[in-house]
Amino acid sequence: MLTGFCYFPQNPTFAPMNKNTLIEQIHAKKSFLCVGLDTTIDRIPRHLLGEEDPVFAFNQAIIEATLPYAIAYKPNWAFYEALGASGMESLRKTLAIIPKDVMLVADAKRGDIGNTASMYARAFFDELDVDAITIAPYMGKDSVTPFLDRADKWAFVLALTSNPGAADLQYQDDGREKIYQRVLRLGQEWAADQPGELGFVIGATRPEAMAEVRALAPDAFFLVPGVGAQGGDLQAVCKYGRSREGGLLINSSRGIIYASSGEDFAACAAEAAAELQGEMGQFV
Amino acid sequence: MLTGFCYFPQNPTFAPMNKNTLIEQIHAKKSFLCVGLDTTIDRIPRHLLGEEDPVFAFNQAIIEATLPYAIAYKPNWAFYEALGASGMESLRKTLAIIPKDVMLVADAKRGDIGNTASMYARAFFDELDVDAITIAPYMGKDSVTPFLDRADKWAFVLALTSNPGAADLQYQDDGREKIYQRVLRLGQEWAADQPGELGFVIGATRPEAMAEVRALAPDAFFLVPGVGAQGGDLQAVCKYGRSREGGLLINSSRGIIYASSGEDFAACAAEAAAELQGEMGQFV
Repeated sequence: MLTGFCYFPQNPTFAPMNKNTLIEQIHAKKSFLCVGLDTTIDRIPRHLLGEEDPVFAFNQAIIEATLPYAIAYKPNWAFYEALGASGMESLRKTLAIIPKDVMLVADAKRGDIGNTASMYARAFFDELDVDAITIAPYMGKDSVTPFLDRADKWAFVLALTSNPGAADLQYQDDGREKIYQRVLRLGQEWAADQPGELGFVIGATRPEAMAEVRALAPDAFFLVPGVGAQGGDLQAVCKYGRSREGGLLINSSRGIIYASSGEDFAACAAEAAAELQGEMGQFV
Repeated sequence: MLTGFCYFPQNPTFAPMNKNTLIEQIHAKKSFLCVGLDTTIDRIPRHLLGEEDPVFAFNQAIIEATLPYAIAYKPNWAFYEALGASGMESLRKTLAIIPKDVMLVADAKRGDIGNTASMYARAFFDELDVDAITIAPYMGKDSVTPFLDRADKWAFVLALTSNPGAADLQYQDDGREKIYQRVLRLGQEWAADQPGELGFVIGATRPEAMAEVRALAPDAFFLVPGVGAQGGDLQAVCKYGRSREGGLLINSSRGIIYASSGEDFAACAAEAAAELQGEMGQFV
């Protein structure tokens, strides 16, 4: 399982990752599932630790096992940076084996002034050739638009998150709108005349919150973290979060990749992914 | 000049980078100067392009030339990530030669939920052993505090920036305070019971704005970008931004490192750094 290179049989197409490709994947797999590759060396099954590159070997097996159910993979950059140069090498090898017809999201939360943002865009879109990156909006328009100047490349901008500190800034209200609502409004304005695609990171799991956010950005794709280990309500997210075109990438990380810590980890990951896909299928 | 390893004669002490060490540097050098290492291969003097690692050779010469005037160095992560694995290797070599008694600030603008922020803290403070990192506050408390759990390590949180998009979110006002004011207030609360040091990124260059921010955070260190190429008023920043202890790291990048594109680049960088230090000296 870990040695062959013929394990992605279903679609050899090298399609550009535009909206059509993503929507095709959603319908072909009846899935919104994004698998989060939050891989840490201390949670990799012990029998893999003898591999030359255990992190890559683990990711390779997870990708192979979950590909029938996943429309996207999302490596969490921090987990690889924490391992230093070898972690980044494991990450590069992982990026290289993700099939071109599923979306590759770099969860890196970059955000800086214009000329620096352009360097980050070059790092992720040109150097690493990912399809999408997550972006922090604190510095405003010129920190976001450099990620939108390439066709078939995506920026998912943090709007409403579900972590404990989300309310610290995101809910501040000037009487007209809250900060996360402002990000939704401005983000769509910034993207309007750009060739790239802008989506939002939306951690809403309560039905009314998800419905409100969807109303504010009817056509945008939402990257939804927090289903699974972070406790989101999958059905509510699908029901209230989907758009006419689908519009959802629903992430699960630990619930899939660490479904088992034994030699059956890949089979268990496939099972966990299949279960989530099954629940999503009715909403596609 | 590029071959020796004895070019940092002035202080061999390996002091922990706490407030005292930083303040000692400020007084010893009569300087608030932070040199921004925004190094790009296309702006490196041509005669260095034959070096085995031109980016490192350039940085090494810049550090050697400016060290008498600088209390901190701030590599801009994007510029190295844009060069891929070789850029990160140049960066690692650069980090390794920055003397321990000046502050090493990773300008990386990280910011994510708690467990991911902890991984970034591990990447920067443990794996790379930098003294400080810049942080984006959009996700709130649990995205910041993991960077404050180590003594002698610093997080500079984005508060008020000076880029064109700064007003998009940072000036939203709920009638009680603007977002950047909220970051200043909450940031100090979050840091109160933590062993690490919290500072702020403050792009204010107008006297009244800097004075207001200083009043809201009387004792915090401010990392001030935008003096030099970005057009800040150095005297106003020093006069209105300093605290009782000094409290300032004033960055200049392009104005120093690209002061000349010829073989005299290091001497010209030293001259530009000396000029800024001279202007700062009266305020220390």
